[in-house]
Amino acid sequence: MTSALENPALLSLAAGFTDNGSLPAEEVRHGVANLTAQGADPEALQYGLNQGRLELRRMLGARLAAQEQGLDAETLSAQMLVTNGSQQALYLAIQVLCNPGDIVLVDRPSYFVFLEMLNGLGVRPVSLPTASDGALDLVALRPWLRRLRGSPDAARVKALYFVSYFSNPSGRSMSESEKIALGDSLRSEGWHLPVLEDAAYRELYYQAPWPARSVLALDAWDQFPRFYLSTLTKSFATGLKVGFGVCTDAGWRDRMLHVKGHHDFGTSNFAQAVVEHALRDGSFVRQLTRVRALYLKKMRALHETLLNEGLASLGWRWRAPSGGLYLWLEAPGGLDTGMDSAFCRACVEGGVLFVPGDLCFGDDAPRNFLRLSFGVLRVDDLREAGRRFVAVARRFR
Amino acid sequence: MTSALENPALLSLAAGFTDNGSLPAEEVRHGVANLTAQGADPEALQYGLNQGRLELRRMLGARLAAQEQGLDAETLSAQMLVTNGSQQALYLAIQVLCNPGDIVLVDRPSYFVFLEMLNGLGVRPVSLPTASDGALDLVALRPWLRRLRGSPDAARVKALYFVSYFSNPSGRSMSESEKIALGDSLRSEGWHLPVLEDAAYRELYYQAPWPARSVLALDAWDQFPRFYLSTLTKSFATGLKVGFGVCTDAGWRDRMLHVKGHHDFGTSNFAQAVVEHALRDGSFVRQLTRVRALYLKKMRALHETLLNEGLASLGWRWRAPSGGLYLWLEAPGGLDTGMDSAFCRACVEGGVLFVPGDLCFGDDAPRNFLRLSFGVLRVDDLREAGRRFVAVARRFR
Repeated sequence: MTSALENPALLSLAAGFTDNGSLPAEEVRHGVANLTAQGADPEALQYGLNQGRLELRRMLGARLAAQEQGLDAETLSAQMLVTNGSQQALYLAIQVLCNPGDIVLVDRPSYFVFLEMLNGLGVRPVSLPTASDGALDLVALRPWLRRLRGSPDAARVKALYFVSYFSNPSGRSMSESEKIALGDSLRSEGWHLPVLEDAAYRELYYQAPWPARSVLALDAWDQFPRFYLSTLTKSFATGLKVGFGVCTDAGWRDRMLHVKGHHDFGTSNFAQAVVEHALRDGSFVRQLTRVRALYLKKMRALHETLLNEGLASLGWRWRAPSGGLYLWLEAPGGLDTGMDSAFCRACVEGGVLFVPGDLCFGDDAPRNFLRLSFGVLRVDDLREAGRRFVAVARRFR
Repeated sequence: MTSALENPALLSLAAGFTDNGSLPAEEVRHGVANLTAQGADPEALQYGLNQGRLELRRMLGARLAAQEQGLDAETLSAQMLVTNGSQQALYLAIQVLCNPGDIVLVDRPSYFVFLEMLNGLGVRPVSLPTASDGALDLVALRPWLRRLRGSPDAARVKALYFVSYFSNPSGRSMSESEKIALGDSLRSEGWHLPVLEDAAYRELYYQAPWPARSVLALDAWDQFPRFYLSTLTKSFATGLKVGFGVCTDAGWRDRMLHVKGHHDFGTSNFAQAVVEHALRDGSFVRQLTRVRALYLKKMRALHETLLNEGLASLGWRWRAPSGGLYLWLEAPGGLDTGMDSAFCRACVEGGVLFVPGDLCFGDDAPRNFLRLSFGVLRVDDLREAGRRFVAVARRFR
């Protein structure tokens, strides 16, 4: 297994990295040249604010307000904190809300780095009732919330988390009605819970934005403390690692800012200035346009290879997503694709890597899901990786 | 007070920022142009490693090994983690060592952002016995350590922290013999304690390096788990926020890396690549040479103004440091210079700000110390700020 992993011809559909060839090198060079031009104020190289650059927050607030009706750009920028990727926003949120032994309600499947982080903080994820296609089970939801309310666990439940646009790992997006029903159900069952909406992939739609507003704009969520978070790193350049969150609750926000002051007293002002420049001069939007088309092409290359090689006829199920970087595959029931499974080993030996799906569940993890990333590999390699994958699947039919 | 703070003519000797005019704009422009050149691998814009860039760690390891005899560059780089400024290194260290209610032994005075961070984590600082000039009281130290060992607090003491080169706030450096005596005393009194040596200002000497090796190289500290930390931000550009730490203890280091994976899974790869480039092409060293001369000039401007205006004859005491960004002043006994003191208000009204020294003590804070920063203001403004300060001091004689 170890020697197989060292095989240089191994193709990884596991890493959640982005496309190297499309990184905005020219845009960043141009931006930095302006930021450091002779005679210009070199403030981008000086300490910035703990909360994040004012102008960056203004532009992000304006961008979000333009995406959703009923939001006020200035309020959004005042409620915003800029973070070291959206990962730090997630960490800060949970660090200030939870103690070891507490519970966070999560979607199913959910973002596995978030689940690992909960584990590191001694916090237990509990999955919302979910249908097999990944949609919330809206029939089961209310009675489930009622039972939880009456259980000894109720006092330990401190937050709700979900990925709502082109999810990592499932590629799925929540419909607006599903999101409204979730808010209504929580409220009617007496759950006044802080909510984290993770919109890290929202900008990475292929052809059209996903037509669902966020918890920031939906009346059903008005009464909840909300933290909507996203990132500029997946959409622009992962090497910059600039994320952000908008928190509607002043107390929660102030506590996160207080702890951020202790973590690092502010995300790299320079990295922030680079993305701010890209937002201002339009290169951010141009880059988005490029990568949207690119990821659609890559998704299709992998998706169509799996189809053409006959994976569906082997009993596997998946859907082509309309944004994001992932295919989420369900193997035939009974086929174990977990981390230590024979299938996983056979894939490594067959020269292709994936993320076992069992990592992506807060509890009661099924063993027959897996995530394929198409962000990193070139189209030809994606096709080859797809062929290798199906060849292994055929041996395990 | 509020309106006085809004006075645009207010001169701040409080902020710990660096000199804006000397920021390495041209060097960064040049570095980024290379990193993003057409045809070059744009990997600086992609995710990096949680532990930090390999080549950056190699160069930092080599640099440190060249400063201290007996260190192995490769070992240093393997034991190194790159962080969001040295602040994150401090945070990670304490987060994994301490629980609320625990104790950290600290120097006296100590870095006030570290003390605030301890407070945020519910950890209590306890000061080492220290003479009035800031040197460790080596006579009192052993019996003190022995008493602490026998006290109910003993089991709560989880670490030792000190700033050893051109300290923030005191400007003082520890001598090698003092550092050795501290290690010997701890060992002989049975304290096998993780130690954090904060060397954030080590590179900012004015004319010659401070001739004391670190805990990494001193035999007296061999048996202790050691975390030596420093930063490239004070010495190069604060806006990049790239710090690092070398941890000799594999278990401690792995726990920090594990938590860093949850915080942000890696410091901005781009910011790291920029300082790596500056180290490689020599601009880091050229920048250091420039700012060393500059800060000496600035220090002298403020120091000599205070002298010439007669502050010493008013009973104030301080020393000109040989590196760093701070003057540490002791007011005549009985004069309260604390945050809410009449003196502090009078300075704000007189158009000059400082950091009250009472923030810089872990316990039993005296009320007659304060910190003046000369990093930010230009020489003329430093002289004016010094005159304003002495004018207020004269009224409080």
